[in-house]
Amino acid sequence: MKTNAYAAQNATSPLAPFDIQRRALGQHDVAIEILYCGVCHSDLHTARGEWGGTSYPCVPGHEIIGRVVEVGASVQKFKAGDTAGVGCMVDSCRTCDNCKDDLEQFCDNTVFTYNSPDKHTNGITYGGYSERIVADEAFVLKVPSNLDLAATAPLLCAGITTYSPMHYHNVTKGQKVGIVGLGGLGHMGVKIAKAMGAHVVVFTTSSNKVEDAKRLGADEVVNSKNADEMKPHLNTFHFILDTVSAQHDINAYLLLLKRDGNLTQVGVPPEPLSLNVGSLVFGRRSLSGSLIGGIKETQEMLDFCGEHNITSDIELIPIQKINEAYDRLVKNDVKYRFVIDMASLKSAS
Amino acid sequence: MKTNAYAAQNATSPLAPFDIQRRALGQHDVAIEILYCGVCHSDLHTARGEWGGTSYPCVPGHEIIGRVVEVGASVQKFKAGDTAGVGCMVDSCRTCDNCKDDLEQFCDNTVFTYNSPDKHTNGITYGGYSERIVADEAFVLKVPSNLDLAATAPLLCAGITTYSPMHYHNVTKGQKVGIVGLGGLGHMGVKIAKAMGAHVVVFTTSSNKVEDAKRLGADEVVNSKNADEMKPHLNTFHFILDTVSAQHDINAYLLLLKRDGNLTQVGVPPEPLSLNVGSLVFGRRSLSGSLIGGIKETQEMLDFCGEHNITSDIELIPIQKINEAYDRLVKNDVKYRFVIDMASLKSAS
Repeated sequence: MKTNAYAAQNATSPLAPFDIQRRALGQHDVAIEILYCGVCHSDLHTARGEWGGTSYPCVPGHEIIGRVVEVGASVQKFKAGDTAGVGCMVDSCRTCDNCKDDLEQFCDNTVFTYNSPDKHTNGITYGGYSERIVADEAFVLKVPSNLDLAATAPLLCAGITTYSPMHYHNVTKGQKVGIVGLGGLGHMGVKIAKAMGAHVVVFTTSSNKVEDAKRLGADEVVNSKNADEMKPHLNTFHFILDTVSAQHDINAYLLLLKRDGNLTQVGVPPEPLSLNVGSLVFGRRSLSGSLIGGIKETQEMLDFCGEHNITSDIELIPIQKINEAYDRLVKNDVKYRFVIDMASLKSAS
Repeated sequence: MKTNAYAAQNATSPLAPFDIQRRALGQHDVAIEILYCGVCHSDLHTARGEWGGTSYPCVPGHEIIGRVVEVGASVQKFKAGDTAGVGCMVDSCRTCDNCKDDLEQFCDNTVFTYNSPDKHTNGITYGGYSERIVADEAFVLKVPSNLDLAATAPLLCAGITTYSPMHYHNVTKGQKVGIVGLGGLGHMGVKIAKAMGAHVVVFTTSSNKVEDAKRLGADEVVNSKNADEMKPHLNTFHFILDTVSAQHDINAYLLLLKRDGNLTQVGVPPEPLSLNVGSLVFGRRSLSGSLIGGIKETQEMLDFCGEHNITSDIELIPIQKINEAYDRLVKNDVKYRFVIDMASLKSAS
């Protein structure tokens, strides 16, 4: 089915209108009319070919919220009219240990929502900057009815990316949790950690983010460049979520962990970080990584956000403003996530 | 009580005979005639002032095996004639969370066996390169009766340093475990991992260690500089123990871990390591540190080694050869631990 979309034709061209084909509905498929799609920094990296490996034309978007318009004969979870979400993945092998353990993001054959080989079309998958998507119901999420739909879109990537490591490391009531960096990921981390019952400390180098961090739920805000502010926090954190994807000093944060504490990186700096092994040895601390989350856990996260009334702070834009939004994203000029109102695509077509 | 010992008088002087005083027996104290003392690389670093903070004269030695000669009035665990061990610590605050959790090595006031402030003498603690030691029974270990005593001494530091992280990370039967580096720590790691039921792979850059690694229990030996040998092991390890305290590429080992696998460093390289965060993020891997082990766990380790008939491979030396042994240690010329036969000290006095 012919579907309006926005695509990058190569690494340097701006995103522009482009027609794609969505496959005919298979028996396990759900057809979704896309209402909102969040703008993740990965979209920009991929569209601009900054990570290498981009197949063009590239239709980004993996924070998708929409309305089910049609379901295949065997679909159980959805019916026409339901609200539904699609995140970073639309399929996987379903038979490997990672898939069996509900961690499809680590499958060797994960089909990502965009820029992945697509067995249905023998082409490449196209993401959520489009009016419609067809996906297997196993990779489609149910969306709590109480949440604002536009502000829910970013939960599908930024939400699960921050929820998953805190859930995995058993963040719970009474613990002291640090969030390093207050961007799209970090601001979700603050809200989720707070809802998990933690005492939340935000580390930032931007003094103009202090008030905002508190509004988002932070109990304390620390300027990480100020040694006097850092010192009282030495050896006190159960868990620190580091969302910074640029070069930075992780040792300063590792030393803030209690014995057996963990720091998890969800940002991937392009250059190696410098690690003092002593920061880990004294205190039996650990440093981990985490990558989005599995489908089962993504559903748990959405349900958790429904219960705790958590959504993203967003700036809603028409798709015609996407290139401007990308330029602002590069400058971190967004509080805290752009979301595309997909009605703008329909009205323009 | 006047006690013969060997001490370094400053960072550049060789170790030489020196008389120290051991305190009078307190009611919880055990007096031990030292039979054997292992030679740890830390002894050398401290004696030569390589870590800074050495108080001279310095009597090193924290892998102590001896015979109880006298016990204080309230001592419960020991009687004269028992075999006993003393490791890296002789006291701690006993009231902090770390002490309450049997992890005295992380107490802020751990009294290390040598080069720590000693409240009993208002001086500094003196270690095992001496004919006698007096220590609180809470920090004295019971030694299994079936083990060779000289070869048991290194368990008190090298044994617990490798046992503790494998125990903490639940190394068990059927798991694939890597040991990086085959020195004093690494060779204990191989024996203990094997006894825990793991499939043990040794990584070394010395081709002349292959046969020896197999003799010690390794199922496989991999030359870590050979990419063809490393490749089949990608994504296959549950746990890797890294004993290398020099600069090296940890990313190559992190990539060998399965999803959720852990690499623990017990060596502390003097310079920072270069860490690719992607090695952690893809596969939700973690990197930890570990420092010796608590007293309770040290006793468990000794009992485990007793059950499995595990001791260190040693080269027994008279104390008069200690400076020569240090020079050989710098060149890694020992298989795999020097142990001082303390009878040599007595006969010389």
